[in-house]
Amino acid sequence: MRMYDIIAKKRDGGVLDRAEIAFAVNGYVSGDVPDYQMSALLMAIYLRGMTDEETAVLTEVMARSGDMVDLSAIAGVKADKHSTGGVGDKTTLVIAPIVAACSVKIAKMSGRGLGHTGGTIDKMESVPGTRTSLTQEEFFRQVNDIGIAVIGQSGQIAVADKKLYALRDVTATVGCIPLIASSIMSKKLAAGSDAILLDVTMGDGAFMKNLDDAIELARLMVSIGTAHGRKVAALITDMDKPLGHNIGNALEVAESIAVLKGRGPADLTEVCLQLASNMLVLAGRGDLTACRALAERALADGTAFVKCRQMFAAQGGDAACIDDPGKLAAAKYRYALTAQGEGYIAKNDVEKIGNASVLLGAGRIKKEDAIDFAAGIVMHKKLGDYVRPGDAICTFYADDPALFPAAEEMYRGGLILSDTKPALPPLVYARVTADGVERF
Amino acid sequence: MRMYDIIAKKRDGGVLDRAEIAFAVNGYVSGDVPDYQMSALLMAIYLRGMTDEETAVLTEVMARSGDMVDLSAIAGVKADKHSTGGVGDKTTLVIAPIVAACSVKIAKMSGRGLGHTGGTIDKMESVPGTRTSLTQEEFFRQVNDIGIAVIGQSGQIAVADKKLYALRDVTATVGCIPLIASSIMSKKLAAGSDAILLDVTMGDGAFMKNLDDAIELARLMVSIGTAHGRKVAALITDMDKPLGHNIGNALEVAESIAVLKGRGPADLTEVCLQLASNMLVLAGRGDLTACRALAERALADGTAFVKCRQMFAAQGGDAACIDDPGKLAAAKYRYALTAQGEGYIAKNDVEKIGNASVLLGAGRIKKEDAIDFAAGIVMHKKLGDYVRPGDAICTFYADDPALFPAAEEMYRGGLILSDTKPALPPLVYARVTADGVERF
Repeated sequence: MRMYDIIAKKRDGGVLDRAEIAFAVNGYVSGDVPDYQMSALLMAIYLRGMTDEETAVLTEVMARSGDMVDLSAIAGVKADKHSTGGVGDKTTLVIAPIVAACSVKIAKMSGRGLGHTGGTIDKMESVPGTRTSLTQEEFFRQVNDIGIAVIGQSGQIAVADKKLYALRDVTATVGCIPLIASSIMSKKLAAGSDAILLDVTMGDGAFMKNLDDAIELARLMVSIGTAHGRKVAALITDMDKPLGHNIGNALEVAESIAVLKGRGPADLTEVCLQLASNMLVLAGRGDLTACRALAERALADGTAFVKCRQMFAAQGGDAACIDDPGKLAAAKYRYALTAQGEGYIAKNDVEKIGNASVLLGAGRIKKEDAIDFAAGIVMHKKLGDYVRPGDAICTFYADDPALFPAAEEMYRGGLILSDTKPALPPLVYARVTADGVERF
Repeated sequence: MRMYDIIAKKRDGGVLDRAEIAFAVNGYVSGDVPDYQMSALLMAIYLRGMTDEETAVLTEVMARSGDMVDLSAIAGVKADKHSTGGVGDKTTLVIAPIVAACSVKIAKMSGRGLGHTGGTIDKMESVPGTRTSLTQEEFFRQVNDIGIAVIGQSGQIAVADKKLYALRDVTATVGCIPLIASSIMSKKLAAGSDAILLDVTMGDGAFMKNLDDAIELARLMVSIGTAHGRKVAALITDMDKPLGHNIGNALEVAESIAVLKGRGPADLTEVCLQLASNMLVLAGRGDLTACRALAERALADGTAFVKCRQMFAAQGGDAACIDDPGKLAAAKYRYALTAQGEGYIAKNDVEKIGNASVLLGAGRIKKEDAIDFAAGIVMHKKLGDYVRPGDAICTFYADDPALFPAAEEMYRGGLILSDTKPALPPLVYARVTADGVERF
């Protein structure tokens, strides 16, 4: 078998078989297939596509390229959740405790932030003392003891995906549905949970710009996971508007705790309840109505908050910060960005909001960059709100006031005021399960 | 400017401008653009195409990536010729002397054989003593003195093409009309001749498998050359059947000399006359009828043969071998491949004939491979001929009889006999000039 022939077959629109996909992927991991051949294949896949069957095989080959985590030492149903990336997306910090409070195990690996989107692991580390790297024994023991642990992704999970993603990132082959689906699902399959809920974000700042693409990605991932014996569903959620008000690591932890205490923003609370309910359905805790009631009760009776506090404490985090987020690191400087004109906020580019937050120190441009946990943005006016000159649109937080001008330019560059109130996107567009698609 | 954005633009079907093409190509030559990004761009070009304008710019950027040969020190019109590759294609050895005998200067660089196709430089070197590497001063002086010199291509001509071709070769991005056109024309523009005749071969063993593609490639190359102030035309010639009978270096020199002496095979002689006439037209020696008469006379009166002999002698070749090709290197062993059945030869795969010849030692698989000048094949029966069991179809020549079985298997693998006589392809399918396309 020759890589050349595999490239030529896909270039001409052919369907690759298991042996060919394994040859290419495993050869790339071992170094036998050079990166210039793999990038030609990736571009051919980008432009010619892959069948569902090819995508499922690619996913499995990538999953098996690293450790396949066996969670059988943890009793009961294990549930996982994945978001395709958002700005101010702190849902994991809310949902995982809700689901664990409803007696479904959370043995989850999460990622770090890169570019304009944040990551759960960075957010957790903004609580002083929190360890996000546990040994497998510690990880299993914690989940068996308190039902929940969230740690950083091991470098040995889906190693092919890691290497392929780095190549896609520099060859303009990231935004391809079969490649996105196989990348996400290879990690989820390898991570070992039984029930997997996918949060497919949609909007100008997300990979998926329109509902048809988002549904196609969701359908594909659900089909791959189902074929591998997992319970999988997806919600298509909006990303034209960040959830809640806070963007930045400590700021998002504080807002998550507010939700868990029943005092969070309505939009964030509602999306978290929908995501949590669907995870509970996948975990076999009843139908959607019953699971929604379970999730609401876990918020209302404080058991979800207690689970969150337990988790941080078990992982070494300072529980006093969970009780009182005012004790989290605070930025030295703040700056209020005010409206220069009058009108409805008709556009508030989410990618630019995320990038402004990165410029303030809250995120990374390169993997090696350090993060300022206290930095970030609190939005006071969001898409659809009416502002008058001088109204505070948002507040920037940073350790150095010299960072404000560039962040302001970035933020304002995505801001458009209009005389007419824009149509507001729904929070959740659709639900995709193994049984089909439900549009809202 | 970022290579990433250039790849993404072409991936999405965009049109690259001069600055983007120059950034990608010159960056690749300098090493600033890594090969994995260039191969992604090449695959995007393969699948999305390029406009004529993009192709013309790419050609110019590649031409200017190396030396631009200035032939102005040679008096008069300089004519060049390029074939897109053939098996048993020895036309340059016939045409160049005919054209030079008609007082049009030939200051030509030619290539070596690779894979199933041969190269003029290897064929010339089968005449003992022949130097195919001259200094520029020697080259110019020889052309000014006797009107003709054919040498190997300098490594400094179109260096971007050389590097890009090596990458295309391993990433399945060779067979793409804009990339083929720019590769060929970048070298021809850099080589400096005023009049350029293109021999676009067509058939199962050629890059161009059908007439529409061949005409498209020819049209594009003529348009690029014309835009750069050169006189360019193309003939689309058949490659479903090798020209003449001989394949292999010394064997092809012998057959070329036979044509120059007026005793060559009719098909080869006719195609050479058509190619030479068209070169003379481009060089301004009159209309096609007048130029055909000039070319025929140069063969009939022996002046073309004399010119060939002068060229070899000037480049150090043993003129006794030109006078008597029986003095060229002869293979130690020969083997007659005979028909096993009865019928018309309905198919005689040209690529397999070329590969059989390589297996006998006449060509190279890798650039570094050595060549046996005496090795090769003489075909006795060709496409459309009737054979009976035991009839000699061809004779193999090699230095080692152990090479015969593999070559036989290769040759027979492309041979199909049939009860019905196949339709024979014409020698020349079409003529493409700056004025349009003439199909025959």
